[in-house]
Amino acid sequence: MMNRREFSATLLGAAAASVIPSGARGTDIGSASQPARRVNGARLNEHLTALSRFGRTEAGGVNRVAYSDADREARAYVMQAMRTAKLEPSVDAAGNIIGRRAGRDASLKPILFGSHVDSVPDGGNYDGPVGSLAAIEVAQTLAEQGILTRHPLEVTIWQNEEGGLYGSSAVALGLTEKELANVSRSGKSIADGIRFLGGDPARLAEARRRKGDIAGYLELHIEQGGTLEKEKIAIGVVEGIVGIGQWEVTVTGFANHAGTTPMPGRQDALLAAARFVDMVHRVVTATAGRQVGTVGRMQAFPGAPNVIPGRVVCTLELRDLDAAKIAALYARIRTEADAIARATGTTFAYTELHTNHPAPSDPRVRALIAASARELGLSTKVMPSGAGHDAQTMATLGPMGMIFIPSIGGISHSPKEFSTPEDIVNGANVLLQTLLKLDAGLPA
Amino acid sequence: MMNRREFSATLLGAAAASVIPSGARGTDIGSASQPARRVNGARLNEHLTALSRFGRTEAGGVNRVAYSDADREARAYVMQAMRTAKLEPSVDAAGNIIGRRAGRDASLKPILFGSHVDSVPDGGNYDGPVGSLAAIEVAQTLAEQGILTRHPLEVTIWQNEEGGLYGSSAVALGLTEKELANVSRSGKSIADGIRFLGGDPARLAEARRRKGDIAGYLELHIEQGGTLEKEKIAIGVVEGIVGIGQWEVTVTGFANHAGTTPMPGRQDALLAAARFVDMVHRVVTATAGRQVGTVGRMQAFPGAPNVIPGRVVCTLELRDLDAAKIAALYARIRTEADAIARATGTTFAYTELHTNHPAPSDPRVRALIAASARELGLSTKVMPSGAGHDAQTMATLGPMGMIFIPSIGGISHSPKEFSTPEDIVNGANVLLQTLLKLDAGLPA
Repeated sequence: MMNRREFSATLLGAAAASVIPSGARGTDIGSASQPARRVNGARLNEHLTALSRFGRTEAGGVNRVAYSDADREARAYVMQAMRTAKLEPSVDAAGNIIGRRAGRDASLKPILFGSHVDSVPDGGNYDGPVGSLAAIEVAQTLAEQGILTRHPLEVTIWQNEEGGLYGSSAVALGLTEKELANVSRSGKSIADGIRFLGGDPARLAEARRRKGDIAGYLELHIEQGGTLEKEKIAIGVVEGIVGIGQWEVTVTGFANHAGTTPMPGRQDALLAAARFVDMVHRVVTATAGRQVGTVGRMQAFPGAPNVIPGRVVCTLELRDLDAAKIAALYARIRTEADAIARATGTTFAYTELHTNHPAPSDPRVRALIAASARELGLSTKVMPSGAGHDAQTMATLGPMGMIFIPSIGGISHSPKEFSTPEDIVNGANVLLQTLLKLDAGLPA
Repeated sequence: MMNRREFSATLLGAAAASVIPSGARGTDIGSASQPARRVNGARLNEHLTALSRFGRTEAGGVNRVAYSDADREARAYVMQAMRTAKLEPSVDAAGNIIGRRAGRDASLKPILFGSHVDSVPDGGNYDGPVGSLAAIEVAQTLAEQGILTRHPLEVTIWQNEEGGLYGSSAVALGLTEKELANVSRSGKSIADGIRFLGGDPARLAEARRRKGDIAGYLELHIEQGGTLEKEKIAIGVVEGIVGIGQWEVTVTGFANHAGTTPMPGRQDALLAAARFVDMVHRVVTATAGRQVGTVGRMQAFPGAPNVIPGRVVCTLELRDLDAAKIAALYARIRTEADAIARATGTTFAYTELHTNHPAPSDPRVRALIAASARELGLSTKVMPSGAGHDAQTMATLGPMGMIFIPSIGGISHSPKEFSTPEDIVNGANVLLQTLLKLDAGLPA
């Protein structure tokens, strides 16, 4: 038998993890003066390469939308990898894969950590797989190093993240009948997709969890923006996941002959929409902060070169960590659009498309992530996640933390999406250390 | 036999028209102190109502695109009306209807006058029909009043005006094989359409005319803009038909995640395109004049609310009577767009879609139109035609003049297109007087 050692949480935060004999691998957890535990980085990157086969495109990315054959094949691979990592995988009623590992204290709530393996159409190999396979690698490292945590662990691979966080929402928030009837990019309804993955929409209540049902949730993910790379930072400590307000904006003017209608008499809906786009940019950048505002869709009607547009349909999206800031920006934009409408003889109408409330991460978990990175000699930056993640639904159940690694060129949702093997291993090691600290207990 | 009287061109400009006995109708041409000759206004408006049956839509307009069944039926009606007006109608090799009336001097070149009866999809009842049926009404009035002109007359109903002045272009400029292969809104190629109307694309050369082959061309048309109505002017004396420059403009930035890409790092093609639209408006309105500039088509790609547009495709159209002004505006716009591109990290590329050279009307014919209106007690305004017309191709063959009447609300290419019966009769009377003056001879 090997020694069983415990360490002070104030030193490493991994205080309560027990070291269990596990054959040839070393079992020292380390201390402030000792090297931190490490995952098998080479293996993790091999697994990423292996997973990228499922749905591979000519461009070198993947088409692995939820509920596709490629998605199901990738999930079979993931479940096999879980078994190798001594996890007990199962599919919950919502179609999520959960790989369980017992803890020392069965009375404790589980710590969850994971990500997703579905992709956007023509997506890349890193958005989701990095966090998913790193979570399995962490579990395998624990198994090999003979570490038994206090808390039960669950590696969670959420289904259909890209289509709208369906798997994690089913667990944290529940799905409505209307949501179950939504048609996903695979062409299947969400309900049919859940069945396709081995879940059962009729038993969704069994997958449901409530606030306090988990001890915490951790997710490693690529940044999907270019900030970390640009600033040469290894690890992003996610402050929270931004809220999103999305509207469809219809600008109505009067379509008329572009040759016979003098400039002063026009009610040009596109001129008004153009000023709207420029104004949104000005309003959003007028104050300090990481808020973003985007007009992503725009079309002019009737859309002929020789007809003054009578109608323009566009979208407005605002994101920030602070819901009040989104509301204030939106109000300011509406006021300024009213002035544009008056000046151009047009009207603006708004329809809400979508609202996501901001999901702050737990400041105590953030501190554990930062401490873990520091111990590994990695630089950190506290930053918002501009993209949505399953972590935002998990934040409603318990303390949530997210770890970012750099995306080269800030490119994501593209075959060109890339993170270096080194950064991926750094992220996995921070995940491992943070998990151990979280297992030891959150600071007061 | 009745008297034959001649009048001084300096008085009426109808000097050389001969009055031929014509039964019950009066034969006095009038003088400066006598009322000018008038068409049968009630009959003209009845004919307009009758023509509006062909291709009528539920909205009260017409769908009578060239080469449709409705187009062919309307043309049959027109040819019957010509016969009633003692014209000899025939279809030339290009598919145009020409209603001939002999003059006193067979050695003189003919005076042409007319318009078109095809419509845009979901068009109105006035764009084309007013000038077409007024021309026939003028011919019928001449016949009834026993007036034989010096010049041979030809009432011309040009085919496929709305699709791109194909009928008049075949006569004045010739059609290329490529143009003959173009697919019209009817779904037929131009060549097939010409055959459908009774023309023969293989014999187009027979329809062709050269510079100097005509003594003049007159066309009455609705304004299609709102200037005459707004200024309470009865008759527009068209200075010329504006030139048109049309370009497709592609703005290229970099598509990226709208949540994870901070505002400063963006290369937003839609922000650049929006500034382009506003700048075009500013540049075009910066100098006095009637020039117009329009961005009529715009679409952002990929076109998702949560993706920064990487590409925008839009159009730019510039119109003015002066080709040099169009060129100068275009140069200025390109220069300013370069600055927008630098500021937004985007690029602008331009493809020429279409160029129409300006076609000034003959100043002597303008003087005849103005004098005719004055004699009829009608107010006039000299103005450009912002829309294209068959008159612009005819201007390459001989002295051209165009007469505008008010469009209520400036609306055209719409079922709501409307001109009052009174304005239509005024226009037809001006056409009649101008024709008689032109027949007498152009002022030096």
